[in-house]
Amino acid sequence: MTGEGKRMERDFLKENECIDDLEIRGFKIIQNRSGFCFGMDSVLLSDFAKEIKPHAKCVDLGTGTGILSVLLCAKTNLSEIFGVEIQEEVADMAKRSSLLNHLEDRFKVIHMDIKEIPHQEILEKNSFDCVITNPPYKKMHTGRKSKDEIKLISRHEVAGNLKDFIKTAYYLLKDNGTLYMVHRPERLVDIIQTLRQERLEPKELRFVYPYKNEKPNLILIKAVKYAKEFLIVDKPLIVYEEDGNYTQEILEIYGKEKS
Amino acid sequence: MTGEGKRMERDFLKENECIDDLEIRGFKIIQNRSGFCFGMDSVLLSDFAKEIKPHAKCVDLGTGTGILSVLLCAKTNLSEIFGVEIQEEVADMAKRSSLLNHLEDRFKVIHMDIKEIPHQEILEKNSFDCVITNPPYKKMHTGRKSKDEIKLISRHEVAGNLKDFIKTAYYLLKDNGTLYMVHRPERLVDIIQTLRQERLEPKELRFVYPYKNEKPNLILIKAVKYAKEFLIVDKPLIVYEEDGNYTQEILEIYGKEKS
Repeated sequence: MTGEGKRMERDFLKENECIDDLEIRGFKIIQNRSGFCFGMDSVLLSDFAKEIKPHAKCVDLGTGTGILSVLLCAKTNLSEIFGVEIQEEVADMAKRSSLLNHLEDRFKVIHMDIKEIPHQEILEKNSFDCVITNPPYKKMHTGRKSKDEIKLISRHEVAGNLKDFIKTAYYLLKDNGTLYMVHRPERLVDIIQTLRQERLEPKELRFVYPYKNEKPNLILIKAVKYAKEFLIVDKPLIVYEEDGNYTQEILEIYGKEKS
Repeated sequence: MTGEGKRMERDFLKENECIDDLEIRGFKIIQNRSGFCFGMDSVLLSDFAKEIKPHAKCVDLGTGTGILSVLLCAKTNLSEIFGVEIQEEVADMAKRSSLLNHLEDRFKVIHMDIKEIPHQEILEKNSFDCVITNPPYKKMHTGRKSKDEIKLISRHEVAGNLKDFIKTAYYLLKDNGTLYMVHRPERLVDIIQTLRQERLEPKELRFVYPYKNEKPNLILIKAVKYAKEFLIVDKPLIVYEEDGNYTQEILEIYGKEKS
């Protein structure tokens, strides 16, 4: 990286923002340190979804900073992915991350409420191969609420709930199109019930356990529009060895060698 | 065991039957070697359900040889458990296992189709603390079918399907009564959807993985009648260490010390 390059990167940033290196094919993401920073859930979901076929047309519902879309552009040969984000300030950050990574032809950010999707014309009904989403995890009236509005909308179902996300995925997907989602295990019953109700059949589930003797804290879900009923539950995804180091699988997902 | 004792045990047996020691408090089970022998699923389910409160009134739907009921009589202070079994020959074996273990006041076998429960008067509606079941796992038109009718009815949904078992559990349970069930992961979507539909809210799930890097082959499910929505997914139950020996937890469930 030359000094000139660094100055150019800075041009993409607003106050309190910084650029994080995703350590995959040179891709980077703009984040706001006092806002919502991407976590392991996005990394694991992008890995879970990496079988997306070449030239796929995708939508990332609630794209946030665009982390999932940027990771998918890095890991797959998808043709285009539309990131829909309700929060203007966050959508703007995602747009700049798309530009920063020269992804403007592949990763397109739309500042819009996902509930408005059926009332617009850019994202067509029944026309996408894949929808991916890391939606807010918590129900409106549960858990500690963040005073920061950006974090609140990202984490709690303030602007859109599970059903809104799933109904929108159904609206956008082609027949046999695939939805990939990450969520919390305590919402599994709601998720499964809503998916089946909306004719997105759950086909694959993977539980993420921090340690092999702890409860899971994430689930990865794949559902297919109008698919036959048959679920595969994958082998457990265990994050840490007993000694607190990452497991081999996590190191591989992060693209690192075991030291 | 005296010679006289052995002769007495033999008196409980019909042709092709044998007695297996359950290695818990001296309890035994009569099985038919050419029929359906109990497996790890019953042992794991009885352990999963061992928090059943003292003096509980229970029903074991599709009791088979009675293995689950006998194990629960050994592990808990339940007051009585009714084992309902559609197959006359198998119900008869279960009755003799109850007598053999001097459980005639606690474990009562009823030869009946579970679908007939709403039309009889022995097992009253809304009156049980707990229902436990190890139902047939496979849908009618899936998988390899056994030519042996006893095995077929035990394994495939020939005589009763998942919905029949769940509806019957709802019928029998008191408000806040608990259903414990073991099943296959590939049926999880059906199970969750049917439980919620029948107002038995799934509260706890545990996946049983043969090895820590293999898919689960069993799930243990706890559901509570009219309970609030909130699911706990437990830490994984891993059966074997990488070297092929049982894990510490399995040894503890079987009541054995690690050698």
